[in-house]
Amino acid sequence: MFRMVDIIEKKRDGEELSKEEITFFITDYTNGSIPDYQASAFLMAIYFKGMTAKEQAYLTMAMVESGDQIDLSAIEGIKVDKHSTGGVGDTTSLVLIPLVAACGVPVAKMSGRGLGHTGGTLDKLEAIEGFHIELTEQQFVKQVNDLKLAVIGQSGNLTPADKKLYALRDVTATVNSIPLIASSIMSKKIAAGANAIVLDVKTGDGAFMKTEADAKALAKSMVAIGRQVGRNTMAVISDMSQPLGFAIGNSLEVIEAIETLKGNGPEDLTELCLVLGSKMVMAGGKAKSLEEARDKLLAVIADGTALELFGQLIKAQGGNAAIIHNPSLLPVAAFKVEVPALTAGYITQMEADDIGVAAMLLGAGRATKEDEIDLAVGIVLKKKIGDKVQVGEPLAIIHSNSTNVERSTSIIQQHITIADQAVKSPQLIGEMITE
Amino acid sequence: MFRMVDIIEKKRDGEELSKEEITFFITDYTNGSIPDYQASAFLMAIYFKGMTAKEQAYLTMAMVESGDQIDLSAIEGIKVDKHSTGGVGDTTSLVLIPLVAACGVPVAKMSGRGLGHTGGTLDKLEAIEGFHIELTEQQFVKQVNDLKLAVIGQSGNLTPADKKLYALRDVTATVNSIPLIASSIMSKKIAAGANAIVLDVKTGDGAFMKTEADAKALAKSMVAIGRQVGRNTMAVISDMSQPLGFAIGNSLEVIEAIETLKGNGPEDLTELCLVLGSKMVMAGGKAKSLEEARDKLLAVIADGTALELFGQLIKAQGGNAAIIHNPSLLPVAAFKVEVPALTAGYITQMEADDIGVAAMLLGAGRATKEDEIDLAVGIVLKKKIGDKVQVGEPLAIIHSNSTNVERSTSIIQQHITIADQAVKSPQLIGEMITE
Repeated sequence: MFRMVDIIEKKRDGEELSKEEITFFITDYTNGSIPDYQASAFLMAIYFKGMTAKEQAYLTMAMVESGDQIDLSAIEGIKVDKHSTGGVGDTTSLVLIPLVAACGVPVAKMSGRGLGHTGGTLDKLEAIEGFHIELTEQQFVKQVNDLKLAVIGQSGNLTPADKKLYALRDVTATVNSIPLIASSIMSKKIAAGANAIVLDVKTGDGAFMKTEADAKALAKSMVAIGRQVGRNTMAVISDMSQPLGFAIGNSLEVIEAIETLKGNGPEDLTELCLVLGSKMVMAGGKAKSLEEARDKLLAVIADGTALELFGQLIKAQGGNAAIIHNPSLLPVAAFKVEVPALTAGYITQMEADDIGVAAMLLGAGRATKEDEIDLAVGIVLKKKIGDKVQVGEPLAIIHSNSTNVERSTSIIQQHITIADQAVKSPQLIGEMITE
Repeated sequence: MFRMVDIIEKKRDGEELSKEEITFFITDYTNGSIPDYQASAFLMAIYFKGMTAKEQAYLTMAMVESGDQIDLSAIEGIKVDKHSTGGVGDTTSLVLIPLVAACGVPVAKMSGRGLGHTGGTLDKLEAIEGFHIELTEQQFVKQVNDLKLAVIGQSGNLTPADKKLYALRDVTATVNSIPLIASSIMSKKIAAGANAIVLDVKTGDGAFMKTEADAKALAKSMVAIGRQVGRNTMAVISDMSQPLGFAIGNSLEVIEAIETLKGNGPEDLTELCLVLGSKMVMAGGKAKSLEEARDKLLAVIADGTALELFGQLIKAQGGNAAIIHNPSLLPVAAFKVEVPALTAGYITQMEADDIGVAAMLLGAGRATKEDEIDLAVGIVLKKKIGDKVQVGEPLAIIHSNSTNVERSTSIIQQHITIADQAVKSPQLIGEMITE
């Protein structure tokens, strides 16, 4: 059999590992035969030496096979999943689930909570009174067959190898490795059972990948993994140098999603949803071209069926569907406080990451797993890069349940740059990666 | 306070760590507050990013301070220690201890057993009936003041950080890192209390450092550490592409040491002892030049005082000093088996590492800590590189307590290359590193 020390040495020396070696590592690490201290040295060697496309595919599949896999074969049609690498004010999932389902693509969405500036998709949906995500696998499949969409939480034993490795990476400075990030994301998506995967890889200050080159490398890695393991996978690089849309917060983003499904959403959020949605509709076999897919998406927004389907989703999962017509039924913060511009000029920079921190400080997100989220609070931006602003004009509105908003106010003011000369708004949609 | 994950990240990104950060790591790793999995990721980051001379000095001193330190201040004179990075048939310590002491330099030698082709200096000395290394620190100091020399085993709590780290490196493919090797060796030498340290850094097939460049880098690292922490340190690069001297085995090397102290030793072993010994005598303040030191060494060989002092050391530590005049009192193997040359020609290569393995298979060394050594067995070479050999002429004599010596015979034959054309013998003494 293999000795882990030899596998570490081989990777340390830049050699390609075999499928058997990688599977041995994942199997024996998951069952506790390989100790954390060998795994962490191995991860650091991967950090420095990388992994080939083949190695990444082996690692991904070994992690998939380390736990349960969701069987979606009882759902008719091509199941398309979407993943975003995360950012600030990223409301796309909430919009895309009903939007794509309304075009006939079955959306069997498994979602997480996660740490960050706001909650995950699950937290946002739970801002809707009564909404629950506890469906059995049978109920889940039936609901998707009946309605074309359902959302559940992640199963306890999905990719346990990835969970264990991620916890180790977090404390050993090995999070930031493209092959490890790519295989982690892809293992979860593959275990969740979709036939096709559309990836939204964010780049810029508010994203995990700060540079476009890194975002592109991550996208290429994930698409290559998908291809190697037989899942139709494609990626879109999108800008996260400023927050997406205007809303940052759980309840606030549900409202923004509803507005977007009505056709009244922020321009950037709407456009990104149309781009990702077109890919999903194409991948789901419901359109022959991106143009046709986009037309279908615009049609289900225009005729209200996408919003209607969102209401049906909410109702099916126990929530109060009336919120789609009356968003004031969602949790509302006690105080709304304007954040005024301190100088006049043009907005040239909005540091998404720091603005996200301001939202988190209000209670919109979790710093640790144990933190409770305040679903009502957050930030609604009034300006974006390129906009003109007067002294005292609001840059944003803080929604808070405390009157003590000084720190968030000052963070927002500090991290929105106002200059004499206007700059071009950053390009929202970057490269499309399909191989 | 510090967070270990930040320290790992800093090293991973190639930044220089502060004294406080390195001391925090060593202190908290030794006391168990920092887990192995963070330490191993850190070690792998060091493997890839190296350490500056300052960092290595901080690491060395933190490891020294992690445990007990031997106080040799009660011994008069400049205490000079010697360390060899290890090889095959390396009998230098056995020769140098009495040789240098006979020139008036106090030798307070703390020695180890270690793993390898043969035992360590302690094992070799224990081939002498009755010899024991259990001296109290007080007895140790007194004996050095009285006789100028004493040998004891390593104290249980010397550099515990190094012990713990070394065990971790062994199973995480991080042994082979020059800053880690250098700080490990130097921490043990410094904790053992000597004022000056002469290093014998081996290079070639039978050495840990296979290339001269690596040996030189290791030597420079160790000399720089010594300089930073105020210990007079110098290094000699010496050849280990073929075994040193003729004998490989515990009892066999004691006999070879006695012959060398009589002036009848192998040419290469004698020369290396004179080179290292001259450095030690100079460092000990007993000669003003290397020439003067060498003359003193030659004089104590010629007049028998070095050999006589070896006898006094043996007697003082309970051993049978008669062996210095009658080496047949040492353990003798039951069988002596010739290893014949299979072809005629000139010896062009003797792969020290493999010949060492042949000795270990006979029982001369330990593969694991638990293995028992057979002090009598080993190999005595009859030829060295450059020598002419006829078919059937013995290349070596195997000393064994079993008649089953086929595997060792064939290893020796396979790893001694005989060619038509003679080659020059490898140069024994390489560069001297003093800064």
